[in-house]
Amino acid sequence: MAETRIVTLTTDFGASDHTVGAMRGVILGINPAATVVDLCNAVNSFDVLDGALTIAHGYRYFPPDTIHLVVVDPGVGSARRPLLVTTSQHCFVAPDNGVLSLVMQGEERLSVRHITAEHYFLQPLSNTFHGRDVFAPCAGWLSKGVEAEKFGEEITDYVRFNLPKPKLISEHILRGAVLKVDKFGNLITNVTPESAPAIFAAEKKFLRITVGEATVSVMRSAYADGQPGELFGLLNSMGFLEIACNRGTASQVAKAGRGAAVLVEF
Amino acid sequence: MAETRIVTLTTDFGASDHTVGAMRGVILGINPAATVVDLCNAVNSFDVLDGALTIAHGYRYFPPDTIHLVVVDPGVGSARRPLLVTTSQHCFVAPDNGVLSLVMQGEERLSVRHITAEHYFLQPLSNTFHGRDVFAPCAGWLSKGVEAEKFGEEITDYVRFNLPKPKLISEHILRGAVLKVDKFGNLITNVTPESAPAIFAAEKKFLRITVGEATVSVMRSAYADGQPGELFGLLNSMGFLEIACNRGTASQVAKAGRGAAVLVEF
Amino acid sequence: MAETRIVTLTTDFGASDHTVGAMRGVILGINPAATVVDLCNAVNSFDVLDGALTIAHGYRYFPPDTIHLVVVDPGVGSARRPLLVTTSQHCFVAPDNGVLSLVMQGEERLSVRHITAEHYFLQPLSNTFHGRDVFAPCAGWLSKGVEAEKFGEEITDYVRFNLPKPKLISEHILRGAVLKVDKFGNLITNVTPESAPAIFAAEKKFLRITVGEATVSVMRSAYADGQPGELFGLLNSMGFLEIACNRGTASQVAKAGRGAAVLVEF
Repeated sequence: MAETRIVTLTTDFGASDHTVGAMRGVILGINPAATVVDLCNAVNSFDVLDGALTIAHGYRYFPPDTIHLVVVDPGVGSARRPLLVTTSQHCFVAPDNGVLSLVMQGEERLSVRHITAEHYFLQPLSNTFHGRDVFAPCAGWLSKGVEAEKFGEEITDYVRFNLPKPKLISEHILRGAVLKVDKFGNLITNVTPESAPAIFAAEKKFLRITVGEATVSVMRSAYADGQPGELFGLLNSMGFLEIACNRGTASQVAKAGRGAAVLVEF
Repeated sequence: MAETRIVTLTTDFGASDHTVGAMRGVILGINPAATVVDLCNAVNSFDVLDGALTIAHGYRYFPPDTIHLVVVDPGVGSARRPLLVTTSQHCFVAPDNGVLSLVMQGEERLSVRHITAEHYFLQPLSNTFHGRDVFAPCAGWLSKGVEAEKFGEEITDYVRFNLPKPKLISEHILRGAVLKVDKFGNLITNVTPESAPAIFAAEKKFLRITVGEATVSVMRSAYADGQPGELFGLLNSMGFLEIACNRGTASQVAKAGRGAAVLVEF
Repeated sequence: MAETRIVTLTTDFGASDHTVGAMRGVILGINPAATVVDLCNAVNSFDVLDGALTIAHGYRYFPPDTIHLVVVDPGVGSARRPLLVTTSQHCFVAPDNGVLSLVMQGEERLSVRHITAEHYFLQPLSNTFHGRDVFAPCAGWLSKGVEAEKFGEEITDYVRFNLPKPKLISEHILRGAVLKVDKFGNLITNVTPESAPAIFAAEKKFLRITVGEATVSVMRSAYADGQPGELFGLLNSMGFLEIACNRGTASQVAKAGRGAAVLVEF
């Protein structure tokens, strides 16, 4: 029953106007039986890495055959191509700017197509809102059962980036960065158990993490274990080192945000 | 199959409390088979014009027979009437304050009814939340197939306004206004190709647009064409002149917001 | 038809990342036929009382057999228990921290279970995101028709609190508090017609309400009855005294927010 397929939305369009609503309408206009679900429409404006993290940490929880529409698209109207990506279980429509990079990292089978079948697009086609005019209608037709090969040819030269990795800047100091500040003010870093096994070890050696104006010297395993006002490190549910504060706002305490350096000393 | 109809929500209630959730519940309580979809619940508080723009630029993308619930309603509890408006393809419930004006502008066939069938309202009826007690239940019953004429008599003296139009204030200067600041900080103005054809012409003559503290002297056709930090004009996907900044925040650069004057010199 | 059941979401996770999207995915991954509806995902961070108010004022509008997932959970990963609560018509999954207290207050029949059936949880189970790993999958399986008794034993020692009540601090002065500031800036207090009948009486005696820097001396029955700039009291749609301002922002006028004292003098 292709007609009841789920279509998720991940965009940086926010909630303050008709844009995401119009995309929902386009999908339902093509396939009123689709189930349109928000994955997240508040990706940081123009922030392709934030979009890449958001879709990569969300899509796997949806059932097989879900269609994921990902529109963080500062290059809309330029030469960047619209893509249709299929993995063994999921399907994605997105601009060719790397926003699916972290999805691709975790998938073995991958088909990437350049969407050229303009008869699926809305007419007139705007230069500034391909979410509505290109990506949403393609997602709608996919949800109706149109096969991927109908949308365009496979390509291999698509844009793809790696998550910026922390670097050893001396024998005992790893330099990472804050990838994202979540709604609670937690600082999500790019430091992982692979890049810094010592800080996640069961037997903790002395450690010091510096971020913004704060120094952190303790790891916790749950938010509630933190003392009032204390900043601590945590392995979060995305698999990253997170600097958090029990019932407080780590980003304010540390005066640090997206992009801030994170120094881990062993 | 009236029971599977789509009901969209456009309100200024925001996301921070139970209010939109309660409206979703009322609709689903009456018709569990309805598909309730957000068009936009973050219309500027009390801003009927913003609500009018939001619904007018969103509703057409939904399939025929969609029911649109529009509640930007600073007059709730006063004498203002609840309306049921039907066009050839869509159906709207909204307060009689002009919030459907821009929808009406684009529709030829129009029936406007004063909703008086109080037996469809929730009891007890609050004075302050007709979104929940009046509009949502009417939308719910409409989605179940109750005919429009059951809700009340047709009227012709409903409130209706025009979008404020830009004015020529001298032979070569047009004065418009910022209608809305979008999530990216783009300034959406009321200047259109009809009101200022010269600035949208293929062969651009010298032009100068002044808004807030900024002067804009170039038109672009896509966001990505803008130079770093540059403010430029653009015909946006709503058909309006928009002042934008490639990967930047035009409203901050120009220090201008909703209502700011926009002077276009030819 | 258990499979088409509605699942509502009430959380403090906000809209800025993948977290609520992942929860939607988990539910739909278990039961693609579920109807997942947001009740509110912008509860104040860590604010169990705000969560309790939100769910209590929203859930009744949903049809019988709705499953409500409520995750305001500063104690995630600690010893606090996950609960499954069933009333005569509704079903709730939530942490055992009192967030369902105000729901329980209004329900006569109540069964409270400690969820111990870990085979329903996602694996690996994180320490920091039980919304995704514990509560969402339980809601998904409930929506598939798994019976409540399969999730764990009934308990009676669950956490429960009362809404903080206003107190008479002298013969003619009642001291209450601001429970919440809504999206419009209205100040929702814990003063009710039961606690202060005089101010809601048809024949108003002289009254004075002090909140923040403001003094309020008039009650209105609708927002639109307020004079420009005037702060007034109102019985709101939740049954509380609300301090409001017609097309203005009471919280800014009064310079008062969540927790501010409200003095009512008769």
